[in-house]
Amino acid sequence: MFELHPAFAATSHALGDLALSHARLQGDARFPWIVLIPRVEGAEELEDLAAGERDVLMDEVLQAGLAARAVAEALGRPAPKLNVGQLGNITAQLHVHVIARRPQDPAWPAPVWGFGTAEPYDPATLEIALAAARRVFGL
Amino acid sequence: MFELHPAFAATSHALGDLALSHARLQGDARFPWIVLIPRVEGAEELEDLAAGERDVLMDEVLQAGLAARAVAEALGRPAPKLNVGQLGNITAQLHVHVIARRPQDPAWPAPVWGFGTAEPYDPATLEIALAAARRVFGL
Repeated sequence: MFELHPAFAATSHALGDLALSHARLQGDARFPWIVLIPRVEGAEELEDLAAGERDVLMDEVLQAGLAARAVAEALGRPAPKLNVGQLGNITAQLHVHVIARRPQDPAWPAPVWGFGTAEPYDPATLEIALAAARRVFGL
Repeated sequence: MFELHPAFAATSHALGDLALSHARLQGDARFPWIVLIPRVEGAEELEDLAAGERDVLMDEVLQAGLAARAVAEALGRPAPKLNVGQLGNITAQLHVHVIARRPQDPAWPAPVWGFGTAEPYDPATLEIALAAARRVFGL
């Protein structure tokens, strides 16, 4: 049975379940940032998914890009670039990061992973960000 | 017409052409590292590919993971983990990095992008690495 690793609950906010993945908004107001966790027990690498699941994940990565861009727009910081990463060096459970980037963001052009310290959303901004992302995902 | 951005030739070694992507070995002996550049004119984001092309790219990412692991084995540094990243903040032409990682590598657990300075392969080791990767890709 699939169980979400507790590290995700500690660092991000639930958006809801897509066809394959559980979708979350990273709790870092510096970056519009979606995390997808395929609900497949024991999966740690893309190769642990079936081929059909990988194609669904690719579709969900596309959707997550639109969602991250929508969060960026909703926060008044439109982002021209997307970054996608599947790392898992610290939390092994398979997950994919999709982040909307722009040249004015604090980490640009470096990757966001391991960059400085996450800044929590204030409650009102969090609601705006969650709503923008959920609208794109149809959640 | 697709033209490879010159930045790739400056930092990596050609492996050959897969169905969709041109495949290269990153010129950094610290990490077994494959770069895939889909041969699609003007593509900068995953959303710039057709759905069928994205599924082929996902298959090629899987193959690149096997190739990166094979390079790691051939160099006597078997790697249990894969990292996959599509960034393009510096070189915009769409490309995907696939890197074989292990806890003993110099950047672990941080991402490899922007970490220290690339260490060129010596010619003999480069031949071993290229041969190992090409064998997996059937090139």
